[in-house]
Amino acid sequence: MNSSNHIEISANTTIGFLGAGQLARMSAAEVFRMGMKVSAYPGTASRSSTGGSGRITDPTDSDESDNKSENTGNFQPLEWMTPLRTPGAFDDRDALIRFARQCTIVTLENEFLDGSLLADVEQASGTPIYPSPKTFSLLESKWIEKETFSKAGIPVTPYRKVTCRDDLKEAGNAFGYPWVLKSSKGGYDGYGNVTIRSEDQAVSAFQSLGGDDNRELIAEAFIPFRKELAVQVARNHHGTAVYPCCETIQQGHICKTVIAPADIDPGIRDEACRISVDAVEAIDGRGLFAFEFFLSDDGRLLLNESAPRPHNSGHYSIEGCVTSQFENHIRAVMGLPLGSTEMRRPVAVMENLLGFADAPAVVENSSDLFKSPDAHLHIYGKRDSKKGRKMGHITLLGEQHKQTLSAVSDLAQQIRI
Amino acid sequence: MNSSNHIEISANTTIGFLGAGQLARMSAAEVFRMGMKVSAYPGTASRSSTGGSGRITDPTDSDESDNKSENTGNFQPLEWMTPLRTPGAFDDRDALIRFARQCTIVTLENEFLDGSLLADVEQASGTPIYPSPKTFSLLESKWIEKETFSKAGIPVTPYRKVTCRDDLKEAGNAFGYPWVLKSSKGGYDGYGNVTIRSEDQAVSAFQSLGGDDNRELIAEAFIPFRKELAVQVARNHHGTAVYPCCETIQQGHICKTVIAPADIDPGIRDEACRISVDAVEAIDGRGLFAFEFFLSDDGRLLLNESAPRPHNSGHYSIEGCVTSQFENHIRAVMGLPLGSTEMRRPVAVMENLLGFADAPAVVENSSDLFKSPDAHLHIYGKRDSKKGRKMGHITLLGEQHKQTLSAVSDLAQQIRI
Repeated sequence: MNSSNHIEISANTTIGFLGAGQLARMSAAEVFRMGMKVSAYPGTASRSSTGGSGRITDPTDSDESDNKSENTGNFQPLEWMTPLRTPGAFDDRDALIRFARQCTIVTLENEFLDGSLLADVEQASGTPIYPSPKTFSLLESKWIEKETFSKAGIPVTPYRKVTCRDDLKEAGNAFGYPWVLKSSKGGYDGYGNVTIRSEDQAVSAFQSLGGDDNRELIAEAFIPFRKELAVQVARNHHGTAVYPCCETIQQGHICKTVIAPADIDPGIRDEACRISVDAVEAIDGRGLFAFEFFLSDDGRLLLNESAPRPHNSGHYSIEGCVTSQFENHIRAVMGLPLGSTEMRRPVAVMENLLGFADAPAVVENSSDLFKSPDAHLHIYGKRDSKKGRKMGHITLLGEQHKQTLSAVSDLAQQIRI
Repeated sequence: MNSSNHIEISANTTIGFLGAGQLARMSAAEVFRMGMKVSAYPGTASRSSTGGSGRITDPTDSDESDNKSENTGNFQPLEWMTPLRTPGAFDDRDALIRFARQCTIVTLENEFLDGSLLADVEQASGTPIYPSPKTFSLLESKWIEKETFSKAGIPVTPYRKVTCRDDLKEAGNAFGYPWVLKSSKGGYDGYGNVTIRSEDQAVSAFQSLGGDDNRELIAEAFIPFRKELAVQVARNHHGTAVYPCCETIQQGHICKTVIAPADIDPGIRDEACRISVDAVEAIDGRGLFAFEFFLSDDGRLLLNESAPRPHNSGHYSIEGCVTSQFENHIRAVMGLPLGSTEMRRPVAVMENLLGFADAPAVVENSSDLFKSPDAHLHIYGKRDSKKGRKMGHITLLGEQHKQTLSAVSDLAQQIRI
C-alpha cells in the first residue's frame, strides 16, 4: 500500500465514483461534507449491450440503464447530486480514462468491474483508483476471492470450481446434498445462486447459469447456519477501523434487517472482527470493505462473501456510529486517519424499504416514523419503485435489542414506497 | 399557516434554494437523504449590478458573484451538488418565476430578499415558498422586525428609526453613548453596523451607511452583555421543535464559537427557548428560525436578531442533536412532523474555520482533528479562501463544557484553510 498517497482536502479535489446507485449517493454526501466535488460514471453493463438487463449492480434496475442519454429521465441516484458526469459503459476503456482524468481519485460502488481494465485505466489516466486494481483483482470472481482468503488462512465456506457438467457430480459427492451453485462473477442479492438438491437439478442450474457458455461457476457447501453476521472494516496506511459485528437477516436472498451489534456471545463478535481484519490485510485493502459470515449450526464462523465497498449491512452506522461507513470509506481512500466506529447508543437496527409495487417512487405513511425519536429515514432517489427493489432504509437507535427490533419492524411495515 | 400543504416525499419532488452558500449546501444534504432533488438559484444582488460586490449573502464573496455564467469556475457551494440551477439576480422576477416553476417548493438561505417580490413569485409560479412571503415581510428589515416582535410583547433591544440627521441626536439623547447605528436591510456579520460614541461619529456613520441616500437605518441601544445566546426553532402545523439554548462567541462581529447548551443557569436557557417559541409564533413561521439574544449585564434577555433560516449558531446540531437544524428545516418546509432536538452527548462545541489568507482553499494540518474521537469536520466547498471568510467549521462532542471548549480550540488553531 502506497502510504505517500494522501489526497488534499480542497475545493478542487474531485472524487469520482464508478457506479451511481445508493452506495455512491451516500458516500457522496461525505465528500460534500469535506467541501470536495463528486463526479459520476453511472455506467452501463457493456458497450455492445443493445437492450435487456444492461445494468449489473441491481437486476431490478434494468429500465434505467440502457441507451443512457443526457436526458435526466433515467438518472441514477448519484446523478442528481452533481453537475459532473461521464456517460459510458463499464467496459469502455476510453470513456473510463476520460472520466478518471477529470478526477483526483476514483472509487467504486460495485465489484463487477474488471481488475485488469481498472489497472489499465489507472495507468493511462494517472489517477489513483481505490480500492486498488490489485485489491480488486484478488476479489473479482467468487473463485478468486475464495482462493485469496483460504490461502491467507481465513475460514471460508468449502468450495470447488465448476467448469463442466462432470464437476457437478463431484460437487455432490464432496459436499453431499444440498449444495449451492453460483455464478463466479456478477451475482447479486441471490441472483446467480441456486441451491442444488439433486443431480438433475444441478444440470439444469448449470445450464441456466450459463455453464454451457463457459461462464465461470463455483460450487459451495450448503452451511446450515444459526445466524448471518457482517463486519465492515475501513483500512489505509493509518490503520484499520473495525465496526461492531452485526447480524443480517435476509428475506428471499435480499437483506431485510441489520441488527447492530449482533445479539450473540461477544466472543463470537470479536472473532468475526479479527477475521475481518485478517481478510482486509490479505487483500491489502485501501477503502471500506464488508465481510459476511455464516455462524454455522455447529458454532463455526465461515467467511461467505466480501465486498470492496460500503455495504447494506453497514447503513446503520450513518446514525448508529460516531463515524459512518461512508465517511470512513472516503477517509480511507483519501489516506486520512480513520474515525471512531463506536456506537452512539447500545443498539441500532436498520430495515430496508423494498419497493411495494411497480409505480413511481412516492413515500407513503411515513408519519409515525417521523414522530419516533431517533428513527431515521433514507430514500435513495430512484425514480421508479418496483416490487422488492431497494428504495431506501430506516434506522432506529435504542437501548435494547428486542424492543428496538420490534419497533423498527412496526415502522417499516407501515411505510409504502 | 396552511396545514394542508404537505409535500410528498418522492423522487420527483424538487426543493429549490434561493441562495447557494453553505447553509443551502448543508440543507441540501438532508433533501438528498430523503431521495428528493435540489435546484439552485445562486443569485446575484441585482439585475443592474455591473461590478463591485454584487453578492449580498457574504461580503467577502464578491469575486464569485458577478457576471455568473455557465462556467463552473465561479460556482457557489450548492452548485456543485446538483445538475439543476437557474442563473439570475435576486430581483429578477422572470428568472425567479422560471426557477420556482421547476420546483415543488422553494426555500431560502438568506433574508435579503424582498417579501413582496417573493409573494409575487409565489403567486405567479404557483409554487409555495417557505418560510412564507408573509413571514418574510415581517422580518425583511431590522425596523420591521423590531416592530413585529415588540408588538408581540417580546423583549427586544430598544430601537428607533433613523431617517434624517436630526434623528441621530435624538438617538443619542434617548440611549446615551455609545449606541449602535445599523443598516435596516442587508447587514451581515457586523457589516452595516457602527457603534456610535459621539455626535460627530454618528454623522459620518450616517453618511457611510447611506443615510443621505435614503437608505433605511435604525438606531439601537448599546447593551452591555454577559453573554450572547441563540436558539433555533423549527415550526410547522405539526408544532415546534426547539433546540437547546446555546452560547455564541463572536470575534470581530463574526461568530467564532458556539457552545451547546450554554453554560448558564438552566432557568435562563428555558426562558430564551420560551421567548423563541413566542417569536416564531409571532411571525407564523414555517421553517427553521434562529433567534439571537443578549443576556445583559443586569440579567435581562433581549432578542437582538433573528433569521428565517438555518443559522451558524445551529451547526453544532448536525452531530450534536438527534435531528439537525438542517433536517428539521427540510421537515418543516415539507410539512412533515419535526424531529427530536435532544442532544447526543452532554456538550457540543462548534468552532468556525475562518480563512487564513487569500489563497485557493486547501485544508492543512487536519490530522489531529481526524484522530480525535467525535470531532467532525465540515468544509463548504468555496474555491477561494480569504482572510476571515467562513470556510468551514468543526464540531466536537464531549462530556464537559470546559474540556470540550479547550479541545476544540486547540484543534481549530492547528487547521489552516
